[in-house]
Amino acid sequence: MSRIRAWAAQAAGQPLAPFDYDPGPLAADDVEVAVENCGLCHSDLSVLNNEWMNSVYPVVPGHEIVGRIVAVGSQVRHLRVGQRVGVGWASDSCMHCHSCMSGDHNLCNQTQAVIIGHHGGFAERVRSHAAWAIPLPDGLDAASAGPLLCGGVTVFTPFVEFDVKPTDRVGVVGIGGLGHMAVKFARAWGCEVTAFTSSPSKFEEARGFGAHHVVSSRDSADLARLASTLDFLLVTVNVPMDWNALVATLAPKGRLHVVGAVLEPIPVNAFDLIGAQRSISGSPIGSPATIATMLDFAARHDILPQVERFPMSRVNDALAHLESGKARYRIVLDADFA
Amino acid sequence: MSRIRAWAAQAAGQPLAPFDYDPGPLAADDVEVAVENCGLCHSDLSVLNNEWMNSVYPVVPGHEIVGRIVAVGSQVRHLRVGQRVGVGWASDSCMHCHSCMSGDHNLCNQTQAVIIGHHGGFAERVRSHAAWAIPLPDGLDAASAGPLLCGGVTVFTPFVEFDVKPTDRVGVVGIGGLGHMAVKFARAWGCEVTAFTSSPSKFEEARGFGAHHVVSSRDSADLARLASTLDFLLVTVNVPMDWNALVATLAPKGRLHVVGAVLEPIPVNAFDLIGAQRSISGSPIGSPATIATMLDFAARHDILPQVERFPMSRVNDALAHLESGKARYRIVLDADFA
Repeated sequence: MSRIRAWAAQAAGQPLAPFDYDPGPLAADDVEVAVENCGLCHSDLSVLNNEWMNSVYPVVPGHEIVGRIVAVGSQVRHLRVGQRVGVGWASDSCMHCHSCMSGDHNLCNQTQAVIIGHHGGFAERVRSHAAWAIPLPDGLDAASAGPLLCGGVTVFTPFVEFDVKPTDRVGVVGIGGLGHMAVKFARAWGCEVTAFTSSPSKFEEARGFGAHHVVSSRDSADLARLASTLDFLLVTVNVPMDWNALVATLAPKGRLHVVGAVLEPIPVNAFDLIGAQRSISGSPIGSPATIATMLDFAARHDILPQVERFPMSRVNDALAHLESGKARYRIVLDADFA
Repeated sequence: MSRIRAWAAQAAGQPLAPFDYDPGPLAADDVEVAVENCGLCHSDLSVLNNEWMNSVYPVVPGHEIVGRIVAVGSQVRHLRVGQRVGVGWASDSCMHCHSCMSGDHNLCNQTQAVIIGHHGGFAERVRSHAAWAIPLPDGLDAASAGPLLCGGVTVFTPFVEFDVKPTDRVGVVGIGGLGHMAVKFARAWGCEVTAFTSSPSKFEEARGFGAHHVVSSRDSADLARLASTLDFLLVTVNVPMDWNALVATLAPKGRLHVVGAVLEPIPVNAFDLIGAQRSISGSPIGSPATIATMLDFAARHDILPQVERFPMSRVNDALAHLESGKARYRIVLDADFA
């Protein structure tokens, strides 16, 4: 294989610049994918800035990848060259631990992030273990599907894992890159959907995504009116909230589920859990099987992220736009290597 | 009906003294039970001392009641005079809310505690809604069954509600009145059981109750060795713990469940939940249906609390023994009204 052209940062805080690397021989279980487009996610910023202290430079970001397979390793039987696939946050896992063997590859503690110690999707081509390269269903608009692979499956997985029912009342806190997809999934799931946002400018858009109700996440009277009503409250933000008020919106047996990694501890009152048998939980991305299920569900219900597009050569402009907080709601970069 | 003799406290901090009251006409849906014996629970102390600020004096404690029905209300069809029943923490609920109609009467927000605004089981007789008076199975030793009605079902309910499996690794934190029953239930459930206690003197007893392993809940090396191993960790204590170390013992998809109402907030790190899809939850007592299931399970597996007995006339001695922290592990008072 030839060298792969990409966009990389050489150190924390550096802009992305052209970079190329030799991917070496294709591993027996891997596929190589020619990138068509790739979402830009907040986690790309976190890795670029080494916020989690585990970045490996040069960093080639990009983990919401859509493209076509251009090569398959010698052991790959279920994928073929030319097939369109998506690759999300993870591009490998150990494949033999209890989690992997149970279909919970996303919980494997050796999950390989595609952009940490590995080069990601802001590139001509990218590699992934074949198990983590998920074929895209025909009915899905591939050009906008990238953000489903990471943000999408992150908010979809809890519906599957915690058996959310179409009869449930579901709340989504934070109408942003993750939350707007969560509202769409919850609506298609058949639920009564309440969106929580601190931005009055997003009220109408949230209804457009499918929310039956929209409330201010900063208005304690709004929250008080929802006391003991919600079966499932998905928190997509990563900033401290009035956690006690949010827990109080949960119905008996209700669950508050976090997918946004807020750094400050969440102070949980045992009484608030005990009295109404409530749960608090979290989860990361999704397994390959759940990604496939999610893509199928999204295709059937015409669920796509709302995206703004940039050519990949303008990746630094796209990063600045994301950092400004003005992205509505997800950014996709179209590969334009000459 | 004649007046009911009982033991009551007239105010917080007062000893119990003889007291009698007129129960009034028997309500159509109620039964009246002649108390044979009654467990003494920490919650009795909390109500006697008005710790929850909702006590109504005079307080007649006692909410782990075993006795025989001596009268049934005009609408009661499924119970008969002479039948032996148990009455636990709750003696009534609204019977028409969503929780009651779903069989989750213990989550009804109008649950009537038998010892708050109502007179409990340290008495000749006690009244309860018929739905909350649960027939005792024949195979169960009624004389020691009282503590199953409150403490027992409190630790049994999570196994049912959260679908604990016989193949699960279960931890029980705190080997006391609740915890020693939890160990017995977990062992009979088929699980691999680890007991956590801060009292080295309880290590051998915990094994006797069925624990396969016993560790010190205060030993960070012990906790570290259990990292990522437990599917279900039941916390029965109500004092602050090293919560992060306890959460870290949970396997992927593991759950930490609290039934002890610790007052200080539990500081939960979102990352610790997200990475391994962990949950934290709580629950109160159990529903009438779950109490019945629990009694049947206890009878089949010969599960009884380990009790110390006092005649009810020595209730103040029994209270002092409980307060001393020396009770091993539950106290039962035998009614001895002359």
